[in-house]
Amino acid sequence: MNFCSHCGARVERMVPEGDDRERYVCPNCATVHYQNPRIVAGTLINAGSRVLLCRRAITPRRGYWTLPAGFMENAETTFEAAIRETREEACAEIGGLSLYALFDLPHIDQVYMIFRGELKSGYAPGPESLDVALFEEHEVPWDELSFPTVETTLRYFYTDRRRGEYPLHRETIARPPSGFFSR
Amino acid sequence: MNFCSHCGARVERMVPEGDDRERYVCPNCATVHYQNPRIVAGTLINAGSRVLLCRRAITPRRGYWTLPAGFMENAETTFEAAIRETREEACAEIGGLSLYALFDLPHIDQVYMIFRGELKSGYAPGPESLDVALFEEHEVPWDELSFPTVETTLRYFYTDRRRGEYPLHRETIARPPSGFFSR
Ligand SMILES: [Zn+2]
Ligand SMILES: [Zn+2]
Repeated sequence: MNFCSHCGARVERMVPEGDDRERYVCPNCATVHYQNPRIVAGTLINAGSRVLLCRRAITPRRGYWTLPAGFMENAETTFEAAIRETREEACAEIGGLSLYALFDLPHIDQVYMIFRGELKSGYAPGPESLDVALFEEHEVPWDELSFPTVETTLRYFYTDRRRGEYPLHRETIARPPSGFFSR
Repeated sequence: MNFCSHCGARVERMVPEGDDRERYVCPNCATVHYQNPRIVAGTLINAGSRVLLCRRAITPRRGYWTLPAGFMENAETTFEAAIRETREEACAEIGGLSLYALFDLPHIDQVYMIFRGELKSGYAPGPESLDVALFEEHEVPWDELSFPTVETTLRYFYTDRRRGEYPLHRETIARPPSGFFSR
């Protein structure tokens, strides 16, 4: 951030009065430009024992498999964001959503919220996907998953499925596991 | 938003290529300025059957009672944000946190995450509080609560407490209940 989005003056880095950390502050109009984490809303969608994955058509991690997920938009709810992303990436309608995994990624200022639900329609690749498919546990392309959040969510799911209980999971993923991006 | 925070040029409102909604876009440097919901992290802290509330020293709703809560900052986790806000507003240390309520407030682009936990220290008003106190259910100042999210969380808690179960609650609070701000 270089300029004030309100008045166009050059911003400065300083601790505002009454605050305890540095912010971008405009010396001209006094606007404090706060920066806050973003929410990524995604879904873990079951069709029986199979799970819906999308192969990414976009960077980063093009060609790797992912859960439908993306940045939540203003004026929508977390449910609406998860439903919209699944529709956009997998052309799929879903239902019965409940929050299943909450991931803190403080190194990139993101909070992932993954909702578990059921597939209620067919599916097909949207513009951001090369392919969409349903996978049994033994079919999951573990070496070709896009992000640590995806692998972690799938491991939770197959473990929980054997126990028949799906509690909310919360985890901080501070860095990708060693070697994750080395393939 | 009037100016590009990257280069200082005047931004325009348009749908970027490959997108499906209007954004602020810079015609000079092509930066797309996305705007996303913010997370408010808060706590419902028990000491036995009593709950910790703070009386607000700041606008809006100065003088009204609230749960410790505030905007999550970059580079922290949701837990860390909840712990920090409780420390700042109630000078209290807490433990045993688990996510208890998730509120979507799409009309103001906010997502509330309220964590339930236990009081592990004394407490006192921080700079943003006039007073901090523990309340039994019959002592809660229902007509002097600051926000719908606070009232809703407290009602969940006392109902759950009678049943001895504390499931995750999720609710969209699109508007304050009629008459809520009329007092
Ligand atoms: Zn300014
Ligand atoms: Zn620009």
